[in-house]
Amino acid sequence: MPHLSPHDVMTMFMALAVLLGGAKLAGELMQKLGQPAILGEISVGILLGPTVLGHFHPHIYAALFPATGVAPIAIETITTLGVVFFLLTAGLEIDLRSIFRQGKSALFVSFFGVIFPFAAGFLAAGLFPKYLGASEGADTLIFALFVGTALSISALPVIARILMDLNLLRSEMGTVIMSSAMFDDLVGWILFSMVLGMMNPAARSGGGLKHTIALVVLFAGLTLTVGRWLIDKMLPFIQAHTTWPGGVLGFIFTLTLAGAAFTEYAGIHAVFGAFIIGIAVGESTHLRKRTSAHIHEIVTNVFAPFFFASIGLRTNFVANFNLGLTLTVIGVACAGKIFGAKWGARLGGMDNRSSWAVGLAMNARGAMEMILGILALQAGLIREQMFVALVIMALFTSLVSAPSIHALVSRRRTTTLKDVVTSKLFIPKLDSDTRHGALKQMCELAANEVSNSAERFLRIVLEREKVVASGWENHLAIPQARINGVTRPLVVVGKSASGIDFDARDGKPARLVIMIITGDNQSQHDLLADASSLFSNREAIEQALEANSFVELVAALNAPVS
Amino acid sequence: MPHLSPHDVMTMFMALAVLLGGAKLAGELMQKLGQPAILGEISVGILLGPTVLGHFHPHIYAALFPATGVAPIAIETITTLGVVFFLLTAGLEIDLRSIFRQGKSALFVSFFGVIFPFAAGFLAAGLFPKYLGASEGADTLIFALFVGTALSISALPVIARILMDLNLLRSEMGTVIMSSAMFDDLVGWILFSMVLGMMNPAARSGGGLKHTIALVVLFAGLTLTVGRWLIDKMLPFIQAHTTWPGGVLGFIFTLTLAGAAFTEYAGIHAVFGAFIIGIAVGESTHLRKRTSAHIHEIVTNVFAPFFFASIGLRTNFVANFNLGLTLTVIGVACAGKIFGAKWGARLGGMDNRSSWAVGLAMNARGAMEMILGILALQAGLIREQMFVALVIMALFTSLVSAPSIHALVSRRRTTTLKDVVTSKLFIPKLDSDTRHGALKQMCELAANEVSNSAERFLRIVLEREKVVASGWENHLAIPQARINGVTRPLVVVGKSASGIDFDARDGKPARLVIMIITGDNQSQHDLLADASSLFSNREAIEQALEANSFVELVAALNAPVS
Repeated sequence: MPHLSPHDVMTMFMALAVLLGGAKLAGELMQKLGQPAILGEISVGILLGPTVLGHFHPHIYAALFPATGVAPIAIETITTLGVVFFLLTAGLEIDLRSIFRQGKSALFVSFFGVIFPFAAGFLAAGLFPKYLGASEGADTLIFALFVGTALSISALPVIARILMDLNLLRSEMGTVIMSSAMFDDLVGWILFSMVLGMMNPAARSGGGLKHTIALVVLFAGLTLTVGRWLIDKMLPFIQAHTTWPGGVLGFIFTLTLAGAAFTEYAGIHAVFGAFIIGIAVGESTHLRKRTSAHIHEIVTNVFAPFFFASIGLRTNFVANFNLGLTLTVIGVACAGKIFGAKWGARLGGMDNRSSWAVGLAMNARGAMEMILGILALQAGLIREQMFVALVIMALFTSLVSAPSIHALVSRRRTTTLKDVVTSKLFIPKLDSDTRHGALKQMCELAANEVSNSAERFLRIVLEREKVVASGWENHLAIPQARINGVTRPLVVVGKSASGIDFDARDGKPARLVIMIITGDNQSQHDLLADASSLFSNREAIEQALEANSFVELVAALNAPVS
Repeated sequence: MPHLSPHDVMTMFMALAVLLGGAKLAGELMQKLGQPAILGEISVGILLGPTVLGHFHPHIYAALFPATGVAPIAIETITTLGVVFFLLTAGLEIDLRSIFRQGKSALFVSFFGVIFPFAAGFLAAGLFPKYLGASEGADTLIFALFVGTALSISALPVIARILMDLNLLRSEMGTVIMSSAMFDDLVGWILFSMVLGMMNPAARSGGGLKHTIALVVLFAGLTLTVGRWLIDKMLPFIQAHTTWPGGVLGFIFTLTLAGAAFTEYAGIHAVFGAFIIGIAVGESTHLRKRTSAHIHEIVTNVFAPFFFASIGLRTNFVANFNLGLTLTVIGVACAGKIFGAKWGARLGGMDNRSSWAVGLAMNARGAMEMILGILALQAGLIREQMFVALVIMALFTSLVSAPSIHALVSRRRTTTLKDVVTSKLFIPKLDSDTRHGALKQMCELAANEVSNSAERFLRIVLEREKVVASGWENHLAIPQARINGVTRPLVVVGKSASGIDFDARDGKPARLVIMIITGDNQSQHDLLADASSLFSNREAIEQALEANSFVELVAALNAPVS
């Protein structure tokens, strides 16, 4: 029986460590720059792959990612598992009911947002297959269908992230965009599974293809109706009679693996099965948030990065870069999607500016295009140049989406404590034990920071204190004031070992004092709401009280205990 | 480059689905029977492996788990990843500080609990290597060290689970047992890594072995001192400056994979590196509970079962079963561990009965023995008969541990709502809108269940109601009474759509009424404490209110929302 030698095991773990560590580091950096993490994860793969590391240090590259033996099989196994699990979480996020509930705008946006880019891609690829990177001997119809599909799937997670960052997710525009993107996802994947079925060499003959399509339609249809109903009936039973969340997790992952195996058997890729199972499970009202949180966190933070980083390993992105092709793909993709979705939004009754924003948001592509590209590359449908062009198109559209919407719809970002606190305004040990003394010290620090008058700050804070005492429960006090002329929010955090009486409801002296001074009502409101949600339980306050350094304080604000 | 074909991918997902589904099902069944889940997970592997399925249906077996091609490599990759991640969680559970803080009893228990079984195994194997299943040409010293080690590692997770079930975990005896078992784990793994280093063919020559031991000692020493300190310093920084918990999860898994790669490179197995990294990370006070919960749930419920179920695939447990050898291994293992730990407990000043309980608890073996056995089998140190004997020894000792302690120390199990509710005492819609009417209906049901007088029940419940109103917050009411002669706790759950006034603090009418009637104070107290922890937030009560069937109600009690 073939077997992993100790050297293979070492190589596999080394490669996985480098991929994951690099991907997470670059992903976090990208997020700091306001970009989706996937950009960083893929860039690291390109750096570690044949493009850069393989080109400049071929020996290191060959040692890390050997091309022969069983190590590449091991790596491919993990990345395949990663992408299948990623599609499970993508499916869990699809909300069929919200798609069916969608109004006229979303209907038009999703319809034209798919039809336009699909038609543009289909026509361009059908007319100029060679120029658009069809491989020798590829069937032009299949190739055209593939290009149309690859240009029409929006990147749901990227779009959700952008809308969240711009505080637009719960707005009317956000709802329209999200339900349209979900619909696109669904339609795109159905198209995709058909293209995959047609690409399947065994199925190219008429009978095999019919077989594949029948199996896939049967699988998706049954899973999303009877299966969905059964899962919804079974979940309460499993939650009632097995250890929790172990039983439910085992159930979901078993279904996912079985779905993946079935769609692979039917002649299309395993990811489709995982996606459909994800939708069916995610629809159940009995699925607990904590269960999906466990799946979501481990999959998106550990398994998905394995896959995304491995994309860059597949080819040389410099040698296979074709400027003309890449620009054409980007041009056709953007034009089709932006105009299609924008036109749909106008027809749905949205104003011109919002319609453009909808078009720009829907334009973000991501993981799906790359998965599609990899499968088409493996199936010999496209040349490597087209694969590179597709990956760059997906990265480029994700990259420009956020700034372009931002330029169009200038929405205020919610102000959070974490954004505002600075090490200068952190007092690990307050000098005074009295309310007046502590507030004086904090006001001096705050006023000094913006070259304002400490007396004026203190006077206004004390006036506010007279009206409403600022003691909260569990040793926390949040004095606050709105002071004209303060241009940016100031948050002073002070700790007191002995505690300071702030007239708290529970009578406990304040050991953590968070003073919020703003010039406007909106950020005052944001910061108070943030404090109230962060410190709603005793453990969170204790965590912040244990912070001895500024970094530990920020950690307490960023990573709450429970 | 070697490559996974669609057929390989399908085979891999099918095999994983069958392994996981079977393992979870059998694991849950075992837990229902009060046994550790691992027993079920391994039994399923034996059923699916060459022992049963391979023997009776060789064609199905060969299709599911092919012996040639790349599919076995893919399965081995996933199970290797599974066992490495499992050791990460095992390491996270080790608390070095509690080991160092341990008192005299724990010191003696852990010392003699390791020395006795090690010496017994070492001597037996050294004197009769062939009888105890040494493979042809195996070095007798290494073999004896291996057997000694394999008999001395206790199964920390199994023991923790048994103590928890018997409500002994927080008792003095429980603390002694847990810190001794952790110490055993640590010592056992250090011994194990040395044996592994000696087994490594490349290291058998003196120089290579010294190299391996130096690298491993350096790795473990540095990781548990400097590394632990560094991780503790870095965690707050990562929690402050990256998305949470994604950044921390990426950090922990990257370290784990790198540690696994390093120990594999050093000449011992990857699991040791993951275990040491797990200990170092788990020591940090900055690690949030929610982060380790994500890791724990996905690893123990998805990845560990892959591994444990795969144990049964490795050999034919019937053909390689040797009764004499198995009984000898069980006898030596039990005698050494039980008497060693029992003697240690006596020396530490525990009474005779408790000392026996300590010995019986420490006697449970589990995952570690099997991992050790697999590695020794792969390295050609032991014959398959010895591997089978080791697995059976681990299963047997785990199996008898709980009942034998239970017989010795008859501890009361905590009564929970989930255990007590029955579908007969569930009223989806109460007939009356008044407190008196609702209580009357509930008392009639309860009294009828135990053939007692409904009038008497109602009178006592109403008396209690007069003293303290039973309305809690958020539409919940918990009327209760202790009634002489009631031999088992009765919990009646009623729902009211319109709500019933129960004098709640927040003035809201009760829509969920849970009546608790017991004959003793202890279970009354247990059930109230359970209700109070379950229904501490509004979401949990709403979840229970949405329960339309009895199964959904039990699900709400077993799988809380937040």
